[in-house]
Amino acid sequence: MCGIVGYVGARNATEVLIEGLRMLEYRGYDSAGISVFNNNTVKTVKSLGKIDRLEQKLEEIGPLPATCGIGHTRWATHGMPSDINAHPHATEKVSVVHNGIIENYLEIRKELMDKGISFVSQTDTESLARLIDSLYDGDPVAAIRGALARVKGAYALGMVFYDKKDVIYAVRKDNPLIVAQSEDAGEFFIASDIPAVLAYTKRYYVLEEGEIAVLAKGGVTFIAPDGSLLQKPLLTAAFTLEQAQKGGYEHFMLKEIYEQPKALQNTITPRVKNGLPNFSSDNVPDELLKNAKAIHITACGTAMHAGLVGKSVMERLARVPVNVDIASEFRYRDPLVNEGDLVIIISQSGETADTLAALRLAKNKGAKTLAIVNVVGSSIAREADCVVYTHAGVEIAVASTKAYMVQLSVLHLLAVRLGLLKGMIDEAEGKRLVSLLGAVGETLEQMLSDTSLVQAAAQHIVQAPDIFFIGRGRDYYLSMEGALKLKEISYIHCEAYAAGELKHGTLSLITDGVPVIALAVEPKLFEKTISNIKEVKARGAYVVAVLSKGVMLDDQTADTSIHLPECDEFTQPFLTAAILQLLAYYTAKGKGLDIDKPRNLAKSVTVE
Amino acid sequence: MCGIVGYVGARNATEVLIEGLRMLEYRGYDSAGISVFNNNTVKTVKSLGKIDRLEQKLEEIGPLPATCGIGHTRWATHGMPSDINAHPHATEKVSVVHNGIIENYLEIRKELMDKGISFVSQTDTESLARLIDSLYDGDPVAAIRGALARVKGAYALGMVFYDKKDVIYAVRKDNPLIVAQSEDAGEFFIASDIPAVLAYTKRYYVLEEGEIAVLAKGGVTFIAPDGSLLQKPLLTAAFTLEQAQKGGYEHFMLKEIYEQPKALQNTITPRVKNGLPNFSSDNVPDELLKNAKAIHITACGTAMHAGLVGKSVMERLARVPVNVDIASEFRYRDPLVNEGDLVIIISQSGETADTLAALRLAKNKGAKTLAIVNVVGSSIAREADCVVYTHAGVEIAVASTKAYMVQLSVLHLLAVRLGLLKGMIDEAEGKRLVSLLGAVGETLEQMLSDTSLVQAAAQHIVQAPDIFFIGRGRDYYLSMEGALKLKEISYIHCEAYAAGELKHGTLSLITDGVPVIALAVEPKLFEKTISNIKEVKARGAYVVAVLSKGVMLDDQTADTSIHLPECDEFTQPFLTAAILQLLAYYTAKGKGLDIDKPRNLAKSVTVE
Repeated sequence: MCGIVGYVGARNATEVLIEGLRMLEYRGYDSAGISVFNNNTVKTVKSLGKIDRLEQKLEEIGPLPATCGIGHTRWATHGMPSDINAHPHATEKVSVVHNGIIENYLEIRKELMDKGISFVSQTDTESLARLIDSLYDGDPVAAIRGALARVKGAYALGMVFYDKKDVIYAVRKDNPLIVAQSEDAGEFFIASDIPAVLAYTKRYYVLEEGEIAVLAKGGVTFIAPDGSLLQKPLLTAAFTLEQAQKGGYEHFMLKEIYEQPKALQNTITPRVKNGLPNFSSDNVPDELLKNAKAIHITACGTAMHAGLVGKSVMERLARVPVNVDIASEFRYRDPLVNEGDLVIIISQSGETADTLAALRLAKNKGAKTLAIVNVVGSSIAREADCVVYTHAGVEIAVASTKAYMVQLSVLHLLAVRLGLLKGMIDEAEGKRLVSLLGAVGETLEQMLSDTSLVQAAAQHIVQAPDIFFIGRGRDYYLSMEGALKLKEISYIHCEAYAAGELKHGTLSLITDGVPVIALAVEPKLFEKTISNIKEVKARGAYVVAVLSKGVMLDDQTADTSIHLPECDEFTQPFLTAAILQLLAYYTAKGKGLDIDKPRNLAKSVTVE
Repeated sequence: MCGIVGYVGARNATEVLIEGLRMLEYRGYDSAGISVFNNNTVKTVKSLGKIDRLEQKLEEIGPLPATCGIGHTRWATHGMPSDINAHPHATEKVSVVHNGIIENYLEIRKELMDKGISFVSQTDTESLARLIDSLYDGDPVAAIRGALARVKGAYALGMVFYDKKDVIYAVRKDNPLIVAQSEDAGEFFIASDIPAVLAYTKRYYVLEEGEIAVLAKGGVTFIAPDGSLLQKPLLTAAFTLEQAQKGGYEHFMLKEIYEQPKALQNTITPRVKNGLPNFSSDNVPDELLKNAKAIHITACGTAMHAGLVGKSVMERLARVPVNVDIASEFRYRDPLVNEGDLVIIISQSGETADTLAALRLAKNKGAKTLAIVNVVGSSIAREADCVVYTHAGVEIAVASTKAYMVQLSVLHLLAVRLGLLKGMIDEAEGKRLVSLLGAVGETLEQMLSDTSLVQAAAQHIVQAPDIFFIGRGRDYYLSMEGALKLKEISYIHCEAYAAGELKHGTLSLITDGVPVIALAVEPKLFEKTISNIKEVKARGAYVVAVLSKGVMLDDQTADTSIHLPECDEFTQPFLTAAILQLLAYYTAKGKGLDIDKPRNLAKSVTVE
């Protein structure tokens, strides 16, 4: 959340920054701005709204030739979205773009105001910018280090000092930032994420905690926290610009839904040896799983919902207790995690701030940590004891689909491995389950070839102000994700309920025509869920039932039924999940909303 | 849910039944009806809607003198609320009122229809009534036993056979039913709950599973499941008719909120000896607590929310892991409960169907069970290994307040006892905490003497279609209950969110003027929650902050602040809970709704 980009090189910096910000817009889009060196001064232009608005403003101003600058697209934390609160925050001497939160900014602000320094915005970033400004006497690195010694919080920073023409300074702590360079080492970039620079290069460095990067036309210098110079390895991004573009789909979200069969295959295949799950190439020791007396899964949002499905399959196959925690809750509640417990951390970006903090807490408590992460080399991937990468490819849409799907696949593989190691299932059963997983991508692909029933169901719910999802057991966990998906992109207030809990209060909201999306897929809970569906139907609900193949309900029970294709109970969640994703997508599409960039949200939540 | 009443005696049975149904209306009110012996026949009158509608209909028909009859107020499960689906269900020979669900009713219906018997309603009850009818050849007990051998499900039944004038037959399984008699043993009653008969008598029998009662003017006979005659103890109800009436308050809910200080005192005092918690008079052995390696709390709705607060205090004071489960989920997910685990079961009525089933499952798995129950002698109280009664008195309003409050107090006392037994806190700390608990009723009473700020806050949110509650840790658990309370009586779609989770999706629903009730009470999480409040405020939310005494927020952060009175961190939940109850009450009142009997809901959920 919040996107940073910076450029120094022979191209028109203003254009490179705007293009870079466009590629980062999924990280935040309530305001944007740039600062560029132009005619021996630094010009800062900022605007409320999306990048288009900033570009309009730049057109009105006229050409702004430059070969170096920094840019930012914002997701508001402190202070409303506005022109003034937009980044960069420019003082007399320095302009700053910032991703993260400065926790003690009010204290710093007061201290500086007491010295007569005045402020224009309500942001935490301005405190930092003015602090750096006040410490600056010609040595940018000294001023940066001095300021960072004073602040508490998380940050990725890009800075230009007005008297250091065509030089960018960058530093980060607990927020991602990469430094990239062109093949010929003549152009340099900073960016929150690789897609921002993919049009120019695939070669990048990972900036570690507290390291300062100095980018000039002649090259990039890295300074360690202790002040010494560093040599860093130059890496190559594993994906291409095409992968970060829509490729003919109307939205990234739809493209990513359709990429799921391939993503499943890419994620599952490397972990199958002799028909059984095998994590040796991920360096996950069997002892780690075998010795786990208790498992804790911690994550945020969609990844946490994947964890809940993981809990149900792990407890069933391995009979080991699994607790699932929201990362922002886990980290602050002094959780009962013991040495020898296994803590599984799930994050698409590998940079989710709360999840990263939960990982560190678990390590401090002596637990073993296993991360399920999509972005290679991300903070969580680097800090966990071991990491199983999902191979979803780059995910651009804010509403996660394929990342969730492959998280499910890793959790299912882990559950089978765990069941084998704990002696709760035998090899034949392990092979049966793995072969089902191996086939699920193909079943999903067939299902995706005709989504007309889901599209028709979406038409029925598109006008609803409120929608409820119900299910029992694993279907309940899936319905939580279905409700979240629909909520975040359609702005309809959706809520998932354990089907048996409705009558303890929420049933008072079920009246004529209120849509209820009822998941009655899991065979052994089917009858019980049908009873709850009848309860809502008796109150006038419009029921969309998601059912196993061949199950028929009369019109006294469901208004619309959507059936999974033929599949085993074990792999039902993958297909149910895709149905719910499509339902969310087509409902939001029916409302004509900005599906890939929903209001207020951002990809990769790097603040608490 | 669903209320049954029956009367035989010298009074006008029609009037007694209507009065009894009024007292049971909190158990369901979508339709009602009676069957009475009148002029050598049985007359059945039924009506959609509340008891008033039934009474109107009776007035239109004209006087219906009778000295014996049965009545029912319905909460729909199978089939819409309608005249036809209302109870009693009368056939050629018998009229039946039923509370519960017959699971295999479709099978029975089909079988009877194949024999040429026709049906008029969509209810499960009609299948049962027609089955009894088909088996009846002059011996009601034989017909009842024959029918019950065929059905699967849960029931409390009241029946009159047309050729057995002025005799009522009753039986129950997994649903409550009492048999009452007047002091002079000249009048007899059946009822789902004691309040239905309190105007006439306090003397009653508890009907056990499978026992049949036969009520006639000459006396009541009990028949055991094996057919033998039974002698049963006559009990005396512990509360009076006044306690089951509003006593000057506009609604039962408000009365019950104001009864909380007294209820806390009644519940806490008997469990304090020498300044420490002591459960010896409840026959809870210290070993039960001391040896618990893991604790599972299982309950539904509001009681489950009490369990979550209990988890936070138990884990903190005793460092023992506590899992909280929704009972309807726990019972069907083959939970990992081991011998030596302690399962705590919470239910106001002691009859909640899913909770009762969860208790039985836990016992089957070899766990020790401790019930926290309000209704003495209820099924859960009788079946648990030990029971700690809350002394809330009778709770009539469907939205639970005082029962929740005293559940919290028992859980806090248990947590302190557990902490002492586990050696995690010392005696001095135990005494300090208990003395805080002892004082909380008085603090609450003072707080309740002026609720003007909460009433003002309610005015600001009364028009909102959607409201969000946020909090972290214990405040999150309390906000779940706050959201449920507001939702069930105001019909506003409320949802509680862990404050740190909002930005993972739900934030897209926060726009100008959307109310967010933010709990930032817990001191150590205060700063973090404030950051989340700023996030919603930056999106235009109308923020009502609930805060500790003395904490001030500027108008950039909260629009309205409600402060707890001075109190220790330990007892904050009791005061926060009352603020949220009042907020729900005054919001629903502002909308002019039927607060004590919210749409679609019923007290004492005795179906799954």
